[in-house]
Amino acid sequence: MIEVEVKVKADHENVRPILKKIGAAKVRTEIQSDTYFAAPHRDFAKTDEALRIRSLDGQATLTYKGPKLDGISKTREELETPVDEFTITRILHALGFSEAGIVRKIREVFRAGEIIVCLDAVEGLGEFLEVEIMAESEKDLETSSHKLFDFLKQFGFGAKDSIRTSYLEMVLEKKNG
Amino acid sequence: MIEVEVKVKADHENVRPILKKIGAAKVRTEIQSDTYFAAPHRDFAKTDEALRIRSLDGQATLTYKGPKLDGISKTREELETPVDEFTITRILHALGFSEAGIVRKIREVFRAGEIIVCLDAVEGLGEFLEVEIMAESEKDLETSSHKLFDFLKQFGFGAKDSIRTSYLEMVLEKKNG
Repeated sequence: MIEVEVKVKADHENVRPILKKIGAAKVRTEIQSDTYFAAPHRDFAKTDEALRIRSLDGQATLTYKGPKLDGISKTREELETPVDEFTITRILHALGFSEAGIVRKIREVFRAGEIIVCLDAVEGLGEFLEVEIMAESEKDLETSSHKLFDFLKQFGFGAKDSIRTSYLEMVLEKKNG
Repeated sequence: MIEVEVKVKADHENVRPILKKIGAAKVRTEIQSDTYFAAPHRDFAKTDEALRIRSLDGQATLTYKGPKLDGISKTREELETPVDEFTITRILHALGFSEAGIVRKIREVFRAGEIIVCLDAVEGLGEFLEVEIMAESEKDLETSSHKLFDFLKQFGFGAKDSIRTSYLEMVLEKKNG
């Protein structure tokens, strides 16, 4: 499965009435703390990969994200496994990985048909709207991507609004002035 | 916690009667399949580290083993977290790690007071006896190590019998002739 994602900057105040109108159902609210790691043997900023520990309600997940697969969305291969947070952190340190940055956000998750809609309020960065579809294979990417951009039109967003910069990159850009 | 371990080559046929005499209690039998990984950025054979996925009754564990901490036992720091085997394997591959070798064994675990006794029958290598104590800190290493060698005397083994070569190293030595 490949997660096809599009992200835009969006005031949640403007998004909520439209979500309501189209009948999107609230699924849950998550308080996510994501610690990203830098590798000792390659520069993830250059290879466009990411390695992250997400802590959520006391349960931790290790996620690897591969390079983006197309030029317009932020679609990537994602591999996720549950882990013990304390131990995997020590294992990564022992292997030479180091903390690159932390992204904290409140994510409200809605469902509108096959599309997952996330309202993200990111510490230090502001409010975003992220929409996702799970694609079976790479050949479904274009179709899925079209569906997401069609969906976003209802909120007044077009392809030009798509932000492919990750929250981590934004956090680091802000930190480094 | 640090696992203090001593391993010797031993016919289980000779070990069992002595285990019985000293009242060691059988705890369980495990069929272990261990896949060891090579790192892309350093040579674990030289740094004396190991990264392993152990598969046991459908549950997988990722283990990092640090370099040996003394000159006589095979004591190391061990860090272990439960993982999803399929996914962590794909994550390790994506990060540039590759399979170095596989060790399969049947391990019978006994307890004799604070000492854990393992009778290992290793595919392609034969039978071994491994004894372990969990030490609280590095300052307890020597005491723990002495206890293990005292314990092994009952089976006719001395310090000269201690094998510090890992099963993986033995498997690879055998494979490479």
